[in-house]
Amino acid sequence: MTVVEPYRLTASQVKAEIGAGRLTVEQYARSLLSHIEKRDPVVKAWEYINPEQVIEQAKKLDAIPPEQRGPLHGVSVAVKDVIYTKDMPTQHGSVIYKDDAPQVDAASIIVLRKAGALLLGKTTTTEFAATVAGPETVNPHAASKGTTRTPGGSSSGSGAAVADFQAALGLGTQTGGSTIRPASFNGIYAIKPTWNSISREGQKIYSLILDTLGLFARSVEDLQLLVDVFDLQDDEPVPERFEVRGAKFALLKTMVWPQAGPGTKDAMAKAAELLKAHGAEVKEIEFGPEVADLPKWHATVLHSEGRVNFLPDYRTDKHRLHEFLVGHVDNVNKITRKAQVEAFDNIAIARPIVDRMLGRYDAVLVPSVVDEAPEGLGSTGSAAFNAPWTALHVPVVNLIGFGGSNGMPVGVSLVAPRYHDRHLLAVSKAVGKIFEAEGGWKSEL
Amino acid sequence: MTVVEPYRLTASQVKAEIGAGRLTVEQYARSLLSHIEKRDPVVKAWEYINPEQVIEQAKKLDAIPPEQRGPLHGVSVAVKDVIYTKDMPTQHGSVIYKDDAPQVDAASIIVLRKAGALLLGKTTTTEFAATVAGPETVNPHAASKGTTRTPGGSSSGSGAAVADFQAALGLGTQTGGSTIRPASFNGIYAIKPTWNSISREGQKIYSLILDTLGLFARSVEDLQLLVDVFDLQDDEPVPERFEVRGAKFALLKTMVWPQAGPGTKDAMAKAAELLKAHGAEVKEIEFGPEVADLPKWHATVLHSEGRVNFLPDYRTDKHRLHEFLVGHVDNVNKITRKAQVEAFDNIAIARPIVDRMLGRYDAVLVPSVVDEAPEGLGSTGSAAFNAPWTALHVPVVNLIGFGGSNGMPVGVSLVAPRYHDRHLLAVSKAVGKIFEAEGGWKSEL
Repeated sequence: MTVVEPYRLTASQVKAEIGAGRLTVEQYARSLLSHIEKRDPVVKAWEYINPEQVIEQAKKLDAIPPEQRGPLHGVSVAVKDVIYTKDMPTQHGSVIYKDDAPQVDAASIIVLRKAGALLLGKTTTTEFAATVAGPETVNPHAASKGTTRTPGGSSSGSGAAVADFQAALGLGTQTGGSTIRPASFNGIYAIKPTWNSISREGQKIYSLILDTLGLFARSVEDLQLLVDVFDLQDDEPVPERFEVRGAKFALLKTMVWPQAGPGTKDAMAKAAELLKAHGAEVKEIEFGPEVADLPKWHATVLHSEGRVNFLPDYRTDKHRLHEFLVGHVDNVNKITRKAQVEAFDNIAIARPIVDRMLGRYDAVLVPSVVDEAPEGLGSTGSAAFNAPWTALHVPVVNLIGFGGSNGMPVGVSLVAPRYHDRHLLAVSKAVGKIFEAEGGWKSEL
Repeated sequence: MTVVEPYRLTASQVKAEIGAGRLTVEQYARSLLSHIEKRDPVVKAWEYINPEQVIEQAKKLDAIPPEQRGPLHGVSVAVKDVIYTKDMPTQHGSVIYKDDAPQVDAASIIVLRKAGALLLGKTTTTEFAATVAGPETVNPHAASKGTTRTPGGSSSGSGAAVADFQAALGLGTQTGGSTIRPASFNGIYAIKPTWNSISREGQKIYSLILDTLGLFARSVEDLQLLVDVFDLQDDEPVPERFEVRGAKFALLKTMVWPQAGPGTKDAMAKAAELLKAHGAEVKEIEFGPEVADLPKWHATVLHSEGRVNFLPDYRTDKHRLHEFLVGHVDNVNKITRKAQVEAFDNIAIARPIVDRMLGRYDAVLVPSVVDEAPEGLGSTGSAAFNAPWTALHVPVVNLIGFGGSNGMPVGVSLVAPRYHDRHLLAVSKAVGKIFEAEGGWKSEL
């Protein structure tokens, strides 16, 4: 017997329930759809969802003989609407692509379908996952407090849907902070894996060297499940159970620390205290001066690549393209090729240096965001604490358990060197348990 | 009055003829289609071409008032079949994607359509532009000599079609040598522009850090026309007319030189002689030891990225995926993450070093290929001379005018630092005139 409403189950729990024959995919889908029907007028996470199509998919999944079922059989996934799905529209949060529906699946979608996932629908995004002008999606935690706050962005809908139990898993993307920021604002787990470790085929391009598929879930086990499906492998085998006692952590405030608000300052202090209280070593470290300009390099690369990648949309109809993106194509910041190439090369030189620094610890604790989710829906907030890690290509996991002065969640992140994603998730699982239990913030959803 | 058959016109000539009202797009299209009908049974460059659709497109273009016409109004383009076109199938040379037709245009196609190009159809490619197993396309120069030779690959059809006057312009891609090699084998001009200087949205991914859109034409002016449309800009303004007399060139045989055959050795020697004879300085230079492993790094990055990007196809049906690509996903070469990241970083460190070296000259002369196109259609030939430049992200232009011992064309290339594409084309225009006039090889097509 399932003791909670199926829609509240994590991916790992759904997998277990369905696997044991205690739940059908259709029952699970109906539970989700009924919850979504109730919550959607408040949260508005979906750009496209067709209940009949979901039920039809669920029935087909139920008809698959048990021995042919995939590792995500029946598990619900919310898909950010910059990722192609051949049976649903893909509109990129752009009026230029209103009702557009390319008949093609992104690489991530092909892999998820083969694994048996239940693709619920498409979630809201800022325009092309490239602006901070929020869609109408409301942070579900704010909604339950009677206020209106952003769920963050650009993966606004996936972050909000997973937090609000409208999907077990979510796909997002990150070019600046578009996965880790909404995870933090919505109080859920997320991994921005090592750049290019999961194919980004069929995901709208903002910047080739920065864009990364991001994964949302309500438990680290669920992220591990996803990472299994995407076949992410470290070089070294990862311990089944990572022990915090005796482990070595570093705390890195980064060059962006002056922007940190009280929520992030408190969360970082509390996180370090908890690690120490559980027997870990926590050493504060700093970036070397050679990477001090990382935020500037990130911006230079971002704008220069946006110049190339939004040219087609600019040519199609620049009056319906956000002025920030028009500015990229018009190169309003007058970024020279020399500056572009230098920023690109300087980041490349920084990557192995930072990998070595991070590699001295089991994981490095860094801020996820400036503070709690800002009020209103006008801006999805700042990616200042995310952009350096995106540029460095390293895996980042958002952990939950801390809250800000308004009772909204404030995440903190763990980072590790490139292609230590599984190691980082093993560490995150152990650390996440502590933070969730003792960090002081609990979801009221 | 047009004095030659319209299908034989270069893009610049077509533009002039149509612009002056001496030719309609429909007349031009009918001339091309009639030539294609005659030649296709021999050359087999097309994966998809629908004459009715071409005529319909041509009529629509003719109906556009002159003042609203784009810079490529009516100019014919052949599109490699790894690039999405919303009104034609895109099959990636793969049986997995047989008859697949995603309803979406690649970024390059959006830009070309807005510019008024006449998109003729889709051209053959090796499987996913990622193997050297040739499609059935025959090198048109070989065909006219009664032999069967590869047109090169992976952009086999675009290279052959442009050489054989079946299209004025062609789109290809290059991850190893997939544009410059077929250009050399087919005796046409091509540019592999600076990596990421043209959006690769909607072009099948093999390797994010290597894949580049490539452009084919029968004149350097035509490449300049394309580069205008794609808005490629150098930092410095480019001279209207580059003077070879007094210019400084370098000749760089590269670490792959031991693989060069007699055709390439002769072409390189002749090219250097001609430059000197026309008053240029030509200095032989060598790569430093710090980049000696570039070919190995390229292969490591290629295989590791292939591991990620062919996972969806592998999961879909690995038995219908070429064993070379199955090997990428299975990581048969046991490439560690450490080796992958080191190769990626070492190439990144090499880029500014090589840019500085190349920047000391007006352009640097390098081999395009090992030799003439090999006999048969089994293999599209070696990318040994191309892979280092693809990894380095620099622009490369294939020049024509030289021939091998079987009378087949042998190209040589000019390279320049990243984002000196327009400069490189200006130099190539002047140099190409000399090589075409005095190199000794003439197309018999």
